[in-house]
Amino acid sequence: MQTLTVALSERTYPIFIGEHLLTQEHCFKPYLKAKQILIVSNTTVAPLYLAQVQATLNAQGYVVETHILPDGEQYKDIAHVEGIFTSLLEKRFNRDCALIALGGGVVGDMTGFAAACYQRGVSFLQIPTTLLAQVDSSVGGKTGVNHPLGKNMIGAFKQPVAVLADTSVLDTLNDREYAAGLAEVIKYGLIRDVPFLVWLEDNIQGLVARDKVLLAEAIARSCQNKADVVAADELEANDLRALLNLGHTFGHAIETAMGYGVWLHGEAVATGMLMAADLSWRLGYLSAADVERVKRLLIAANLPVIPPDSISSAEFLNLMAVDKKVLAGKLRLVLLTSLGHAIVTADFPLATLEKTLAAGTQLGQLYD
Amino acid sequence: MQTLTVALSERTYPIFIGEHLLTQEHCFKPYLKAKQILIVSNTTVAPLYLAQVQATLNAQGYVVETHILPDGEQYKDIAHVEGIFTSLLEKRFNRDCALIALGGGVVGDMTGFAAACYQRGVSFLQIPTTLLAQVDSSVGGKTGVNHPLGKNMIGAFKQPVAVLADTSVLDTLNDREYAAGLAEVIKYGLIRDVPFLVWLEDNIQGLVARDKVLLAEAIARSCQNKADVVAADELEANDLRALLNLGHTFGHAIETAMGYGVWLHGEAVATGMLMAADLSWRLGYLSAADVERVKRLLIAANLPVIPPDSISSAEFLNLMAVDKKVLAGKLRLVLLTSLGHAIVTADFPLATLEKTLAAGTQLGQLYD
Repeated sequence: MQTLTVALSERTYPIFIGEHLLTQEHCFKPYLKAKQILIVSNTTVAPLYLAQVQATLNAQGYVVETHILPDGEQYKDIAHVEGIFTSLLEKRFNRDCALIALGGGVVGDMTGFAAACYQRGVSFLQIPTTLLAQVDSSVGGKTGVNHPLGKNMIGAFKQPVAVLADTSVLDTLNDREYAAGLAEVIKYGLIRDVPFLVWLEDNIQGLVARDKVLLAEAIARSCQNKADVVAADELEANDLRALLNLGHTFGHAIETAMGYGVWLHGEAVATGMLMAADLSWRLGYLSAADVERVKRLLIAANLPVIPPDSISSAEFLNLMAVDKKVLAGKLRLVLLTSLGHAIVTADFPLATLEKTLAAGTQLGQLYD
Repeated sequence: MQTLTVALSERTYPIFIGEHLLTQEHCFKPYLKAKQILIVSNTTVAPLYLAQVQATLNAQGYVVETHILPDGEQYKDIAHVEGIFTSLLEKRFNRDCALIALGGGVVGDMTGFAAACYQRGVSFLQIPTTLLAQVDSSVGGKTGVNHPLGKNMIGAFKQPVAVLADTSVLDTLNDREYAAGLAEVIKYGLIRDVPFLVWLEDNIQGLVARDKVLLAEAIARSCQNKADVVAADELEANDLRALLNLGHTFGHAIETAMGYGVWLHGEAVATGMLMAADLSWRLGYLSAADVERVKRLLIAANLPVIPPDSISSAEFLNLMAVDKKVLAGKLRLVLLTSLGHAIVTADFPLATLEKTLAAGTQLGQLYD
């Protein structure tokens, strides 16, 4: 088991990375001072792993209750968070209770937001069960829900007391979800870590085969990259943290246009990252060979790289305008100045962006 | 105009106290860097004061939008906060926008909570238009909404950038709402400020008559008392801040039992404070003469001191058990060890509490 420490101004917490963590008492006990524990999970994950976690906690004398959400991004809304509040109140949970998120990013976002708001804040421990959640939601404290008019528009910053990134639970992920996680792993290489990018290109086949040693390495290096960024910019006060959103403005537009849950978040981000690379190439930042490397790595990870042709350029622009990175009314995007180096900028011609938005299926071929 | 500075770890903000503040540019401009402003008000306050605030802001070049809530505690729920999010998203408000709360405590609580959660946090300026909100919600950063199973159970700590406590707007309050505000003013004297308590006993008739000079003094001394407490315990990490809840555990039970909005918050707190004083007397902390002083002051302020006889002791106990001051399953109450000195304690016999809960109409006579 590896332990990575996330250092933040207010609090430091550990991320444990390794196999079979759900049964290990020392991953829970030092971080859960509460007697009352609510485990929030979903209908897919609960049948697989809930009993293990419950047994570990029951053996330590905790009062453990559960709240099971339906599975899917389309349920990540205020109404379903309100359901968590109802469970907490029905079970008479007090301010000294703790919530455990057992599931993917959706469960983590909703549980963290519920923990941030219940009685104005209770403890929160995170057990991400997807690769995407392990490398993305484990660090940063971003929690929240979607609104019909925009993704992740409602939320809070809430740090967990500990994160358990158990590589054993990734065996039950389907191929699409697993690949979606690799998209965020690749992102860290693209925005700030050339050696990691090269390592990923060398090991992508082993990672696709879910090699546990490679996986632990990829998770640790991803979390470390994110932790470095977040420690420097915890509340997203400057542009540093915004670099983590490479591909996300394009990706959110795809997710919103298609309806939440149709494209997985990581799939939309993968295509969004190639769109960002394409725009970076059109602006003269990247060479055609650079974009080709991005495209090949994404394809090798079994990720989509072409946006749905049902989304027009006009719809893309409209949806991108509500993104949180719009400051003072100007659309700002994360672009790559070279592989491993990203910037946030509003300094690009609209016509050039429109070329990227209209490229469609050409994105898959342009740089061959 | 008086200016009181609230000093907090992260940020310091001013409370302006005086007449005719809504038209004064210097109360707004230095604190609103955003171009996009959403004023949240309600159907009672908006017709009276919205145009003034809009005109002041429009003259300074802000883009001002409005969101009008129905008036009443019964609408202080998640669904109505979601309506604020919808307005913000429909109007394409970005992370650099600001919300202004123009109304009483309900509008302030909901707007502050919306500002805390919209895009994980935007700016928030507060214009409390009731006496209760001016002396209570102006300081402390507590925001949130009710849940059908408990009052103020969902929320966040969110500090405003500035507070405008305009004494002119109190002229339009009805007598019940005005008296409800006096309940919280009296509370500060009871829990920590004997000289203020004596001053209130001397000036209660002038205050009931809404004398502007006395009012400004009462508001400033109340806010200063609260600011001292909050500065020492911003996130309610110890018992200090809990002392501000004198009468609230009893009061919340009354509000919940009667249905939100039937009893005003301040009315329920007034009766709750006499119940707390009664229990303090039964435990030997207060003399009968002390309780008599509390009762006389509350009655002189036109406040109710007898709980509804429809609430049984059992129902009281049941409703009090979900209060946030329950820690590790034990009911903790704010009691008075003497006039001007309060404690939080779970150290009282249940049978004694039940005597207070069953006292009913005797509360109005017991100490004569």
